[in-house]
Amino acid sequence: MRLSEGVEWGIHCATLLAVVPPERTLSAARLAEYHGVPAPYLTKHLQALVRAGVLDSVPGPRGGFRLVRPAADLTVLDVVEAIDGVDPSFTCTEIRRRGPTRLPAREYGVPCSIHVVMDRADAAWRAELQAVSIADLVREVVQRAPARALEKGIGWMQEVLA
Amino acid sequence: MRLSEGVEWGIHCATLLAVVPPERTLSAARLAEYHGVPAPYLTKHLQALVRAGVLDSVPGPRGGFRLVRPAADLTVLDVVEAIDGVDPSFTCTEIRRRGPTRLPAREYGVPCSIHVVMDRADAAWRAELQAVSIADLVREVVQRAPARALEKGIGWMQEVLA
Repeated sequence: MRLSEGVEWGIHCATLLAVVPPERTLSAARLAEYHGVPAPYLTKHLQALVRAGVLDSVPGPRGGFRLVRPAADLTVLDVVEAIDGVDPSFTCTEIRRRGPTRLPAREYGVPCSIHVVMDRADAAWRAELQAVSIADLVREVVQRAPARALEKGIGWMQEVLA
Repeated sequence: MRLSEGVEWGIHCATLLAVVPPERTLSAARLAEYHGVPAPYLTKHLQALVRAGVLDSVPGPRGGFRLVRPAADLTVLDVVEAIDGVDPSFTCTEIRRRGPTRLPAREYGVPCSIHVVMDRADAAWRAELQAVSIADLVREVVQRAPARALEKGIGWMQEVLA
C-alpha cells in the first residue's frame, strides 16, 4: 500500500500556499522551484488539486494557484484524496461468493466480515488525516522547522511576491 | 493507495485455515478451489505468508499449509503485512531539504511535520488491523455468513479431510 509521490508534493504545496497573502498566488514554476521538484510533473498534481476543489487556478500574467478557502477549512485528507483518489484501499472482490460454498448473490445479506474490518481500518486512516487542517500543518511547520529554513522561506516569498 | 488482491485472498485463507483441525493442513490446490481463485497465483501469496511466519508449509503427500500458531494469536495485520509489506504507506522524500530553503542535513533536528501526520495515520490503520485476530474473524464470519454457505463449507471441509 503506497501513496504516490504526488501526495507529498501536494501537501507541501498546500502548506506553502496557506501562507501566501490573500488575493496573491504562486505559479506552478514557483511552487516547483520552492520544493525542488520538476514543474511539468508537479503541474499534473496541481491540476488534480484544482479538479478536486482544493486549489483555485487564477489565469493571467499574475495568475497562479491559491487555496480555495482558508487553510483552517482544508484538511490533509482533502489534499490526499485529491491526488490519490477516494477509493478505499481494500477492494473486496467477493471471493466468498466463489468456490464450493457459493450461493446466489441475494443470499448474502450483510457485507463480508473481512471487508468490514478492512474498511474500518481505512476509515481510521482517513479520520486521522481529516483531523489535521492545513492551518494546523502550518503551525506545526513554523514550530518545528529549523529557524534558518523559515527565514530563507520568508525571504524567498517576499522576493517572489514583490 | 491500493492493497493488492493477494491481501483479500490471504485473509480468507488464514480464516479458513483457522478452522482446520490441529495437525491437519490444506494444500494450495484445495485453498484455491475453496476460494475459486487460480492456484499458481495463490501459491505465491501462500509462500509470502510462510516467509513472514504466518503459515507453516508441511511437506509430503498429506502436506499443505496451516497456521503457525493459534488463530487468537495471529492478527489481520500479520496477514496484511506478510503480503503487502511493512513499509509505511507514505514515503517522505524530504523535499523540505530541496529548493531555496535547504540547509545542511544536520540542521533538521526533527522529522518533517507532514511526515509525522502521515505516519500517524498509517499507525492508526495498522492499529485497527492489529486489534482483530484471525479468531475474531472466524467468529464474525460464523455469525454473519449465510447459514447455507456455512453448511456447504463444513461439508466441503469434512470431505477434504476425510
